[in-house]
Amino acid sequence: ASASDLIRATLFPGDGIGPEIAESVKQVFKAAEVPIEWEEHYVGQEIDPRTQSFLTWESLESVRKNKVGLKGPMATPIGKGHRSLNLTLRKELNLYANVRPCYSLPGYKTRYDDVNLITIRENTEGEYSGLEHQVVRGVVESLKIITRQASLRVAEYAFHYAKSHGRDRVSAIHKANIMQKTDGLFLKCCREVAEKYPEIKYEEVVIDNCCMMLVKNPALFDVLVMPNLYGDIISDLCAGLIGGLGLTPSCNIGEGGIALAEAVHGSAPDIAGKNLANPTALMLSAVTMLRHLELHDKADRIQNAILKTIAEGKYRTADLGGSSSTTDFTKSIIDHL
Amino acid sequence: ASASDLIRATLFPGDGIGPEIAESVKQVFKAAEVPIEWEEHYVGQEIDPRTQSFLTWESLESVRKNKVGLKGPMATPIGKGHRSLNLTLRKELNLYANVRPCYSLPGYKTRYDDVNLITIRENTEGEYSGLEHQVVRGVVESLKIITRQASLRVAEYAFHYAKSHGRDRVSAIHKANIMQKTDGLFLKCCREVAEKYPEIKYEEVVIDNCCMMLVKNPALFDVLVMPNLYGDIISDLCAGLIGGLGLTPSCNIGEGGIALAEAVHGSAPDIAGKNLANPTALMLSAVTMLRHLELHDKADRIQNAILKTIAEGKYRTADLGGSSSTTDFTKSIIDHL
Ligand SMILES: CC(C)[C@H](C(=O)O)[C@@H](O)C(=O)O
Ligand SMILES: CC(C)[C@H](C(=O)O)[C@@H](O)C(=O)O
Repeated sequence: ASASDLIRATLFPGDGIGPEIAESVKQVFKAAEVPIEWEEHYVGQEIDPRTQSFLTWESLESVRKNKVGLKGPMATPIGKGHRSLNLTLRKELNLYANVRPCYSLPGYKTRYDDVNLITIRENTEGEYSGLEHQVVRGVVESLKIITRQASLRVAEYAFHYAKSHGRDRVSAIHKANIMQKTDGLFLKCCREVAEKYPEIKYEEVVIDNCCMMLVKNPALFDVLVMPNLYGDIISDLCAGLIGGLGLTPSCNIGEGGIALAEAVHGSAPDIAGKNLANPTALMLSAVTMLRHLELHDKADRIQNAILKTIAEGKYRTADLGGSSSTTDFTKSIIDHL
Repeated sequence: ASASDLIRATLFPGDGIGPEIAESVKQVFKAAEVPIEWEEHYVGQEIDPRTQSFLTWESLESVRKNKVGLKGPMATPIGKGHRSLNLTLRKELNLYANVRPCYSLPGYKTRYDDVNLITIRENTEGEYSGLEHQVVRGVVESLKIITRQASLRVAEYAFHYAKSHGRDRVSAIHKANIMQKTDGLFLKCCREVAEKYPEIKYEEVVIDNCCMMLVKNPALFDVLVMPNLYGDIISDLCAGLIGGLGLTPSCNIGEGGIALAEAVHGSAPDIAGKNLANPTALMLSAVTMLRHLELHDKADRIQNAILKTIAEGKYRTADLGGSSSTTDFTKSIIDHL
C-alpha cells in the first residue's frame, strides 16, 4: 500500500504496561497488513495549560484530525490542580458514548459461559459533572446533571448500534423510581428514540434489579444503555462476568464521527516493562476501531486470532493463569492470523 | 409464658403475597415458642395526612413504641401526591442503616458457593434526597447529599457490627475519584471510625471495581459499608449471587435502637393468594430481628430449620424450581425445628 492509502490513527500508548501492549498491537496490525499508520502521542511531562492536564494539546488535535485513535492505560499523576487524563479526553473530545462489547471467551472459563452483551454508557454528564460543594460544615452535595441533548444522543447511538449490529433489544437502565426528574428525563429520551426503531424491542430496567439479573442470568440482556455512573458500574460488573478488564474492549464515540478505542484496565506499574502484561483488551479495542472504520475483514481476522490463542490456552499471560510473556502471546496471535 | 413475658413486635404483613408469608412466619414463631406478641398493622386505604402516605400514623407509632418490627412487601399505589411506603418508613423512623446478610444456601445451587458477606447501606440520604429540579428546559439536576453525621453513624454501625459478629474486615465502597467532596466525606468518616477499631481491617474500594470483584470472587469481601445508592445496587447484586431477593434477609436499624426487619422482594401480585409464595426472605429477616433482640437460641433454631428445608430440597416453592406450596414449605420448616 502506498502512503496515501494508509489511514492515519492516533495512538496513545499510555503509561505503565501501556507501551508494551501498544507494541503488541502494532506488531499484530503489521502482520495482518492493516492499512493504518500510527501517529503516536505520549502523556506529557508537565501540565499543558490548554488542556489543564498532562495531555498535550497536539495529541488531542491529532485525534480531532484523524478521527480514530487507540488509547492504552493512563495513570493520572497524583497531585493537585489538574484533571484526570481519562476525563480530560472525554471532555475535550466530547466522547459522548462509551461502548463495551462483552462476550464470554471460548476456552477461558469463568462462572458464566453465555455472556454476549453490549453496554453503552453516556460518557459526559450525570454524576461526573464535577459540580460539588460544601453547603455547611459537614454537609456536602454533588450535582447530577442530565440533559435532553446528551440523553437523546446516546439513546440514538444505542438504537443505531443495535440495528446496525443485528441486535434486537435495547434495555435502558435507570433509577427513575427515585430520581424521577433526572433519570426520568433519560428514560423519556430513550422512549422517544425507541419509537423510531419499531423493529428493536425496548425495555426499562431499574439498576438494582439489572445488577441482580446480570449475575443470575446475563443472557437476559442484549444492548444496555444508561447514564454515566450506572454505565461505569455495570460495564465493570459485566467485565467481571467474563474474566475482567484485561479481556474487555471499549470504544468511545465522539461528536463528528470520532472513535477512540481504549483499554479500560489500569497501567499496572508493578509489572510494567517486565514483558508480563496481557495485551488482549487493547487489541480487542483496536478491533472495535477497525470495525468503526468498516475494515471488517481485518477486524475478523485479528479478533479470531486473539480468540483462538486464548481458547488454545497454550500461551496465556499471568493474569489469565498462564506463564507466557507478552511477546510470546503476541507471537501466537500472529501465528493464528 | 405469661403475657408480661412477651415482647411486643410490630408486624406489617404488607400487600400481595405479604399476608401469606407473614402467616408462615407467625406459625413458625409459634411452633418455636418465640416469646413475641405481634401487633399487626396494615397499609391504609387512604393517605394519612400525618405521614403523607398510605402508612398510618398508628403503625409508625407502634414501631416507635415496640422498637422491633417485621415488614412484608408493600407496593406503593400508583398515582401522585404520596410518597413510596418504603421511603416513608425509612424517613419517619430514621432507619439509617440497612443491613443485609448474604450467604450461599447449602443445597441451593447457584454459580457461587462461597458467598458470606454483609452489606450495610446508608439509608437516609445520598441520591435519595428527593431534591431535584429543572434548571432550564432539557436540563435537570438531582442533588446527592452526604453529611458527616449520617456517614459517621452508619460507619460506626458497620464497625460495631463487624466486631460484635466476629467479622474482621470492613470495606468502604465509594466513587471518591469522581465525587471527591461527597464520597470523599463519606470515606473520611469511615476512616475516623476505623481508627477506633484497630482490630478490624479497613479498606476502600471503588464501586465499579467492587462490582467486578464481587462477580469474580465474592469471598474477597466481608462487611461492606456504603452510601445509599451504592448500597441499593450492591445489595441486590449480592442477592443475585445466592439466588435472589426471595432468599435474602434484611434489617433496618433506626435511631433509638429501632430494628425493622424487612423482606426486600416485591409483593408479587400475580401469585398473591395462591399459596405459591416463598416465605424464606421474610422468615430469615425475622431471624435477624430475633438476633437484634439477643434471642440467639430461637434465631439459630429457626434459621437452621429453614436452611435444612432448603438443603433437603423436598419442599421448595416455584421460585426455587420446586412445586411446593407455601404451607407445605412452612410445615417442613416446622418439622425441622
Ligand atoms: C478512572 C475513572 C475516573 C473512570 C471512570 O469512573 O469513568 C474509570 O472507572 C472508567 O470506567 O473509565
Ligand atoms: C423500591 C425502591 C424505592 C427501593 C430503594 O431504591 O431503596 C428498593 O430498591 C430497596 O432496595 O428497598
